[in-house]
Amino acid sequence: MSLRAPVAPKVQDWPPETHELGRFKRARRAYGFDEVALVPGGVTINPADVDISTNLGTLRLPIPILAAAMDGVVNVPFAIAMGRLGGLAVLNLDGLQTRYDDPDRVLAEIAATPADRINGRLQAVYQAPVQERLIDERIRAVKREGVLVAVSTVPAFAARRARLAQEAGADCLVVQGTVLTARHHSRSYEQLSFERLTADLAIPVVAGNCVEFNAALELMRTGIAGILVGVGPGAACTTRGVLGVGVPQVTATSDVAAAREVYLEESGRRVAVITDGGMRVGGDVCKAFAAGADAVMIGSIFAGAHEAAGQGFHWGMATPDASLPRGTRIEVRRRAGLKEILVGPATVDDGSQNLVGALRASMGVCGARTLREFQETEMVIAPAIQNEGKLDQQAQRVGMGR
Amino acid sequence: MSLRAPVAPKVQDWPPETHELGRFKRARRAYGFDEVALVPGGVTINPADVDISTNLGTLRLPIPILAAAMDGVVNVPFAIAMGRLGGLAVLNLDGLQTRYDDPDRVLAEIAATPADRINGRLQAVYQAPVQERLIDERIRAVKREGVLVAVSTVPAFAARRARLAQEAGADCLVVQGTVLTARHHSRSYEQLSFERLTADLAIPVVAGNCVEFNAALELMRTGIAGILVGVGPGAACTTRGVLGVGVPQVTATSDVAAAREVYLEESGRRVAVITDGGMRVGGDVCKAFAAGADAVMIGSIFAGAHEAAGQGFHWGMATPDASLPRGTRIEVRRRAGLKEILVGPATVDDGSQNLVGALRASMGVCGARTLREFQETEMVIAPAIQNEGKLDQQAQRVGMGR
Amino acid sequence: MSLRAPVAPKVQDWPPETHELGRFKRARRAYGFDEVALVPGGVTINPADVDISTNLGTLRLPIPILAAAMDGVVNVPFAIAMGRLGGLAVLNLDGLQTRYDDPDRVLAEIAATPADRINGRLQAVYQAPVQERLIDERIRAVKREGVLVAVSTVPAFAARRARLAQEAGADCLVVQGTVLTARHHSRSYEQLSFERLTADLAIPVVAGNCVEFNAALELMRTGIAGILVGVGPGAACTTRGVLGVGVPQVTATSDVAAAREVYLEESGRRVAVITDGGMRVGGDVCKAFAAGADAVMIGSIFAGAHEAAGQGFHWGMATPDASLPRGTRIEVRRRAGLKEILVGPATVDDGSQNLVGALRASMGVCGARTLREFQETEMVIAPAIQNEGKLDQQAQRVGMGR
Amino acid sequence: MSLRAPVAPKVQDWPPETHELGRFKRARRAYGFDEVALVPGGVTINPADVDISTNLGTLRLPIPILAAAMDGVVNVPFAIAMGRLGGLAVLNLDGLQTRYDDPDRVLAEIAATPADRINGRLQAVYQAPVQERLIDERIRAVKREGVLVAVSTVPAFAARRARLAQEAGADCLVVQGTVLTARHHSRSYEQLSFERLTADLAIPVVAGNCVEFNAALELMRTGIAGILVGVGPGAACTTRGVLGVGVPQVTATSDVAAAREVYLEESGRRVAVITDGGMRVGGDVCKAFAAGADAVMIGSIFAGAHEAAGQGFHWGMATPDASLPRGTRIEVRRRAGLKEILVGPATVDDGSQNLVGALRASMGVCGARTLREFQETEMVIAPAIQNEGKLDQQAQRVGMGR
Repeated sequence: MSLRAPVAPKVQDWPPETHELGRFKRARRAYGFDEVALVPGGVTINPADVDISTNLGTLRLPIPILAAAMDGVVNVPFAIAMGRLGGLAVLNLDGLQTRYDDPDRVLAEIAATPADRINGRLQAVYQAPVQERLIDERIRAVKREGVLVAVSTVPAFAARRARLAQEAGADCLVVQGTVLTARHHSRSYEQLSFERLTADLAIPVVAGNCVEFNAALELMRTGIAGILVGVGPGAACTTRGVLGVGVPQVTATSDVAAAREVYLEESGRRVAVITDGGMRVGGDVCKAFAAGADAVMIGSIFAGAHEAAGQGFHWGMATPDASLPRGTRIEVRRRAGLKEILVGPATVDDGSQNLVGALRASMGVCGARTLREFQETEMVIAPAIQNEGKLDQQAQRVGMGR
Repeated sequence: MSLRAPVAPKVQDWPPETHELGRFKRARRAYGFDEVALVPGGVTINPADVDISTNLGTLRLPIPILAAAMDGVVNVPFAIAMGRLGGLAVLNLDGLQTRYDDPDRVLAEIAATPADRINGRLQAVYQAPVQERLIDERIRAVKREGVLVAVSTVPAFAARRARLAQEAGADCLVVQGTVLTARHHSRSYEQLSFERLTADLAIPVVAGNCVEFNAALELMRTGIAGILVGVGPGAACTTRGVLGVGVPQVTATSDVAAAREVYLEESGRRVAVITDGGMRVGGDVCKAFAAGADAVMIGSIFAGAHEAAGQGFHWGMATPDASLPRGTRIEVRRRAGLKEILVGPATVDDGSQNLVGALRASMGVCGARTLREFQETEMVIAPAIQNEGKLDQQAQRVGMGR
Repeated sequence: MSLRAPVAPKVQDWPPETHELGRFKRARRAYGFDEVALVPGGVTINPADVDISTNLGTLRLPIPILAAAMDGVVNVPFAIAMGRLGGLAVLNLDGLQTRYDDPDRVLAEIAATPADRINGRLQAVYQAPVQERLIDERIRAVKREGVLVAVSTVPAFAARRARLAQEAGADCLVVQGTVLTARHHSRSYEQLSFERLTADLAIPVVAGNCVEFNAALELMRTGIAGILVGVGPGAACTTRGVLGVGVPQVTATSDVAAAREVYLEESGRRVAVITDGGMRVGGDVCKAFAAGADAVMIGSIFAGAHEAAGQGFHWGMATPDASLPRGTRIEVRRRAGLKEILVGPATVDDGSQNLVGALRASMGVCGARTLREFQETEMVIAPAIQNEGKLDQQAQRVGMGR
Repeated sequence: MSLRAPVAPKVQDWPPETHELGRFKRARRAYGFDEVALVPGGVTINPADVDISTNLGTLRLPIPILAAAMDGVVNVPFAIAMGRLGGLAVLNLDGLQTRYDDPDRVLAEIAATPADRINGRLQAVYQAPVQERLIDERIRAVKREGVLVAVSTVPAFAARRARLAQEAGADCLVVQGTVLTARHHSRSYEQLSFERLTADLAIPVVAGNCVEFNAALELMRTGIAGILVGVGPGAACTTRGVLGVGVPQVTATSDVAAAREVYLEESGRRVAVITDGGMRVGGDVCKAFAAGADAVMIGSIFAGAHEAAGQGFHWGMATPDASLPRGTRIEVRRRAGLKEILVGPATVDDGSQNLVGALRASMGVCGARTLREFQETEMVIAPAIQNEGKLDQQAQRVGMGR
């Protein structure tokens, strides 16, 4: 007799469950990381025995974690350090690294600017033009160390930069806008063709961001290797405040994962679903995988690394936007080395260190040998709104040997 | 294959979804702005290409935003500034502007009164009688500048003031009470006939406030051009605390929008649904439209404009109520010019500036070319109760060019 | 065409809606005041024209509000003041008023005791025995002023005190325990027979507290005139913390109201449902009636009256419990006269004053002419967890004339 | 006519109720203590007349409360005191008591270590090896006093220590890991066989922790006498933050209780369900029983006893983990004697004292004569998120005699 919940991954039947917002509108309920938890399985596995590697097109990543293309996070030394540890950093081709010969000086200036003048300062420093020479130089500097590196570009310059990046040796091209679709309409400029882009390039293309099943499916059909999931994932994030737009990450990841399954069935090709943003602790990373992700992209946690470019600060790429800024400079403080954060050992208990160890331990207690099995882990809806800050004996017994 | 949620606007079948409050009572679940978010579409549009204009009876408004008839917000100069930018201000005919020859002196007094004596002060200054001469004068002062202006009146004096206002050149008459229905009963005074009022006037009549489908439908059938939606919309608002009455704005807007559709079908005439109150940021404005609004009316955000009448303070029109005050003077501080607030560019990232830019950007990422299309945007229920104040990289990438 | 929600009062069919807590247990969802709001009706009524009177057995109460039998609230002068205003105070026959010739001295002592010694002090002062002579004296002192007064007793002494109280002129006897049922089992003492008690007395008997349909129905069948609803109603209340027991008041009131309807049908007799506890503002009082109450009993709000016995402090009757204290002394401060609190005019906007005015205004906007009609008002589930402390223009416009 | 909710315990039919997290995944809703409350019954019972005893295999426990095997709680004197009061302490065989001849010295050192160096200090003191001599000594020291005592071991050393413990006179063996299943896989060490362990031992074996129906059923089939329920039960606990894993305790207890019922039917043997962790007050303890528990295991509340080993501090057993610490030292302060905490009388009203009195009173108002009847008590879903810190008269009236 089994009463196991029928939660194993499958694409839900149409129509989805909706609730009446009012007489004029219905809506689905969407869930964020804080509202769910993983259920330990009927089998447990020694964390040392689980396999956390993932594929991104032709690339095999030993660690399924990408560092986000944020100017406060990734520069050349960070990308090298990340690659050596087995992760993949994404270098922003539209940021300070490719606008300035000496970006560290500009970053130091940003770090030193008082809070009340930071918006103006950021707007000013991003006026400098991107230099193609620097694109080439930065990529080659990382590749000289023999590690994998990805680069990101806004859609507007994707076609032109793709070639430059591939020639310089980049292993992956990320085309990223807040919300990216296969169909963008504008009367004043031409739309990027992802079909042409993926056909022209030998390296895998990742596109995003995306949160919706149909939009994801259309993007997958253009030939991309990976898709970034996440629009306004933090529940109190600026995008949601300013534009009202956003889907919490558990639902967004699960919806795009369903598109992956549908596309896999129709094409035989598996596109990597990369949850991007909203993960503040290792437990959130684990939940992203259990919700359906093949990899995750992390910004804020890495911004606190000693190696991060921002010298203890970070900011989003829309912060310097001239007419509708969405984000400001945040002080994260340098709290640990990248190695401690990524592969440990952790010296703190708040989930901000040893993300790989947490992923392995979580897969172990959930009985998942691989990430694909982890995607089948049962989750429960269990809002984290009570007893904040309370600890009890149970909470602290994880990881005792057996 | 499509798994798109069936959320496109249509009037929901009877009966609505209800939950058991107890054995004696059932209730619908109602939703506020903080509980929902918009889902980006499968198509995106260049924000410069979207059309945000709306109709209010015979008036065509280039910007679908009204400034509320609050004494701390609208006076003659504010109305002129608002009109020049393309918006529509509503001048309160029962307020200080029509009671005093020199209202600025009274407003300065209010601003200077210490908090512990403000209620008495407000009760006192509202004892002065409204002067019809000033009604005429104020309206003409705005119209001399060639911009549109609306005026508001309580129901008790609506019939008399309607004629005065129209003669003075007002473009729109707003008849507003906390809760307004087509059927009001009193043993001590006569009920206003909206049928007669709308028949007698050439200018469009807006009535409110209203939150319920049937009450809205009855009001629409009296011939009004627009309807104000909102009773106690803020979740912690005074109306709800004092009277227990209130419906969160997403549900209220959606219910009244359904009444609009039903009335449109029966009459061929489209009444403008105007969400009034409860919007604290641009994202809330976007959600109001997506929930079904044709326009929005805003008070608090505008009260923080340098041009606002209240000199950094505002208060509701029930604040001076002699037996049951509901509201007090609030200090909002003068934080930006009306132009920055309404059409930008924004210099802050908190959603309080460039409302038009936010609306355009939101429509763009949701793939809506017009406000009517925007009313069909998918929403999700996604409570904003976690991670308050947390920002992440995703949140800040909106608006990057593509 | 009508899309009105089918929320009109009727006893819900069996079985009620339940959710799976786990494989072993299901549970209903229960609602508190903060989770619901009233929906304005399609008709509005001049507040001056609504009728708020209620019946309690043979008593006709012009104001449907009782003052709770708490030692920090009701003494002889308070009871007189309450009665003169049209309300009904309940004098506690097991409290300080009947243990001491000069209770004011003891109350002053309690008020002066430092917080860290208050529990011991309370335990000590409640050691003095109740004196039957004082029971008689206190009741007669109130009745000399010609106003109605009720008295309360614990079940253990109900039979004996009932006679004393009736002889002294009390108008109503309240038999009150935390949880009271028609069937109590004990090996060490005899169970009170409510049938005998109600048969023996000429004055109406009120019993409680109760939250459950069946328990209420059984109590009603014993012949009582009123029933008190409420066990652990405050969401963070001590009963719920200490015993885990409690049902939020909207659901409890609605369940007991359903029992009233069932009993009314079977007997032709209407038992007054009195919501007791958990109401912090006028809006909560309005919601209690809309949930099904015929009257409400209030403690904390009245404890802040200048006339309250506790001199700015109050405490529950289980606070001095010797083995399991549940509650402590709370400082409420004397904030207004009883007249302002009960019938206004209010000088503050927080819902703590002019409860009668608030009830009238709420009934007016909901289109209810009588309390029975008000029990049919539509409610919505609308959690008050967002935007705490935010006010907006809409919130303050209630009560403007029309 | 009865409208009683159909909540009496029975194993729910398959499939359970689930909600769509996204197109790829469904999930059940899980509930914690703060989200539920007990409903008083139609019968009440004198608390003195209820029976709270429980069975754990062949052991009869007069009080169904265990003290958790935490180094900050249980040492020899604590175990003796607990046993004398009728409870059962669990002595940790992998902790400081069996690593040091003079553990009090080490505990004093831990208590004196500044917060910023505590993690390193804890890691250091747990490097000392466990000495089998001390295992024997500690157990015999408790047994000399003639009280019951249980001991706990990690799975890795369970087989070896089981024999030692039984020989020394331990009454019960607890085998405890964060998540424990009947099937653990590892390439580097051999899996513990619970079948062999339970067959080899005369004393009852308790195993855990567990939260899932099927995993619990498999463990029960190995012959264990009791099962510990709880993984990451506190909503903000470290396990959930670090690993994303955890199921709130009401649902976990109810699921495992269902497994008990299924196993009881198939085997005729009743395994004791022991809720472990997450209970902060007496009300939570009551809820655990009502959710289906036969006993509870408590750590934090006991850590505040004068007799607790930790001298006012406690920490979880994963706190000293070398690569992924989950928990830190918490100062609980010594607030009361063990007797006050366990059997009262209480001198505070916050639910932290007189757990037995609270359990008896709660069973009394719910009309439950035994723990088995208490498991049938109706519960409601009633989130405790409003009005935090508010008290009202109702809350404090519990326990008044009748």
